[in-house]
Amino acid sequence: MAIAPLAVALGDPAGIGPEIVAKAWDARGQYALSPFFAVGDRRSIETVWAGPIRQIASPDDAAGCFDEALPLIQIEDTGPIIPGQPDLAGARCALDSLEMAAGLARSSMVGALVTAPVAKHQLYAIGFAHPGQTEFVAERCGVAKANTVMMLAGPTLRAVPITTHIPLRDVPDHLNVELILAKARATERGLTRNFGIERPRLAIAGFNPHAGEQGAIGREEIEIIIPAVEQLRAEGIDIVGPLSADTMFHARARAQYDCALCLYHDQALIPLKTLHFDEGVNMTLGLPIVRTAPDHGTAFSIAGQNMANPGAMIAAIALAADAARNRLVYA
Amino acid sequence: MAIAPLAVALGDPAGIGPEIVAKAWDARGQYALSPFFAVGDRRSIETVWAGPIRQIASPDDAAGCFDEALPLIQIEDTGPIIPGQPDLAGARCALDSLEMAAGLARSSMVGALVTAPVAKHQLYAIGFAHPGQTEFVAERCGVAKANTVMMLAGPTLRAVPITTHIPLRDVPDHLNVELILAKARATERGLTRNFGIERPRLAIAGFNPHAGEQGAIGREEIEIIIPAVEQLRAEGIDIVGPLSADTMFHARARAQYDCALCLYHDQALIPLKTLHFDEGVNMTLGLPIVRTAPDHGTAFSIAGQNMANPGAMIAAIALAADAARNRLVYA
Repeated sequence: MAIAPLAVALGDPAGIGPEIVAKAWDARGQYALSPFFAVGDRRSIETVWAGPIRQIASPDDAAGCFDEALPLIQIEDTGPIIPGQPDLAGARCALDSLEMAAGLARSSMVGALVTAPVAKHQLYAIGFAHPGQTEFVAERCGVAKANTVMMLAGPTLRAVPITTHIPLRDVPDHLNVELILAKARATERGLTRNFGIERPRLAIAGFNPHAGEQGAIGREEIEIIIPAVEQLRAEGIDIVGPLSADTMFHARARAQYDCALCLYHDQALIPLKTLHFDEGVNMTLGLPIVRTAPDHGTAFSIAGQNMANPGAMIAAIALAADAARNRLVYA
Repeated sequence: MAIAPLAVALGDPAGIGPEIVAKAWDARGQYALSPFFAVGDRRSIETVWAGPIRQIASPDDAAGCFDEALPLIQIEDTGPIIPGQPDLAGARCALDSLEMAAGLARSSMVGALVTAPVAKHQLYAIGFAHPGQTEFVAERCGVAKANTVMMLAGPTLRAVPITTHIPLRDVPDHLNVELILAKARATERGLTRNFGIERPRLAIAGFNPHAGEQGAIGREEIEIIIPAVEQLRAEGIDIVGPLSADTMFHARARAQYDCALCLYHDQALIPLKTLHFDEGVNMTLGLPIVRTAPDHGTAFSIAGQNMANPGAMIAAIALAADAARNRLVYA
């Protein structure tokens, strides 16, 4: 089914975002990528890539020229653009690009939003008040952060960290039945809407070694996870666990579920990045729009050296397009 | 260099131990395995395997018959042997086998000790007072448990969990500089003695997401891990970190170190078993003898059905033989 073109915010002009978006366009035939357009300063691409760019005024113009050139909506960076050297003008450009792309993605002219990496510290310096791009996009969509879910997706594993960027010491005190219920329900809905899985199979990890061995090595399974699993099953959600975290991520185990629910950041991110370091995609569930991002940073240290691997950006674009198509069916 | 034959304790007679040891013998040519002999009740093998067994009186007899039959030192199980149905007589047989094999391994007649899985609850029921086989072997060798290190080894990753079977909530309070120093030093020595690595490269993980982001997400890196790393470097040990745990286990990252030091059980076991579920080996460092074990359990649910994968047992035998050979050089 036909979807509208995707908006790809270029992220920090001095990071690897412009390079990997351009390389994704180079690979559009190989990966059968749906039409997309960049949002950012064309100079940030021209500095690192010699291919054709077509400046467009509206997303409606993207599909018509996508075969011949990388379509781009221009957002000016008022400073010099030097790969690997971020500055405040670049941060303003990244924020303006994000705002424009997110706004367009809320219209029917755009199928989905893809965001290249930004430099958070630079953004904070210009007054950006959100922890990251996800929270900014959620606010623009009128969705509370607590109702969104970060899912990491690779070719053979999807994983949701139920808590994210908090000290591991504090995780047990953040876990509770309601939090698990909210994340599991949003994950189940997101698997249907974005991935077209009619009856998603969830698996939740244990928190302690060997999932606590019936309470012998920790009580979070008995006091929090198992009651949440029982409630979710009573609601008709297909969920197994708590499973021993160390034995749920090998190939045969992964084949048994559509998404792993993990209790803390590294429990989800270690297996995901161990298996799919160059192709991990971050997808935000719970939004009215489709939003994906490559699961890596600005990589200033290699920017401008033609060394950046576009694999995760290509995967983020492909997954966003798939999700947009699925939403036409499973709205 | 020639090493003495390896002693392989069969573990619980009703588990998959006898089957995977017999299958390892079947595969002795394919994997060029050094001569080994089983220690346990021959009936436990005969119940699940039709190959030739040669009962021997001394380890010295193993090498001479290893090509034609699986050599075995008989330890009688006084009860019936029914795969998948553990009982107390079987636990006594497993313990007697372990004791015999460990005792022989301390002599020059035996090159190394390999242990098949036991059922801990059955062992506890007959008065076994150690948490597991590792502690029993350490005591028989006159080594305090605190001076041993559990290393998990697969074809492309070695990892040491600095804490093991304790609730994750309690890990921060167990971590301290001295503990990390002790484990890192023993790991470095173990890599030289057992793996022949003259100048081992260690990498230590961070405890918090993104290794704490300079204290923004947790303090354990700043207060515990970094001071330990500085001390180890001052001693001349080659160690990097704390590294962000999620980005240190993909293929290019693993190539940069010989062993990962991890702060808690699942931080080490998730990547190891995600990558090498069927070939993970548990090696105990810090003992006067070489000791390995397949990194899985008794698997009673599939015992006696010819379904057990001998990969980890074969790897445990091969690794023990390699380590015994290295010890002839790096004693």
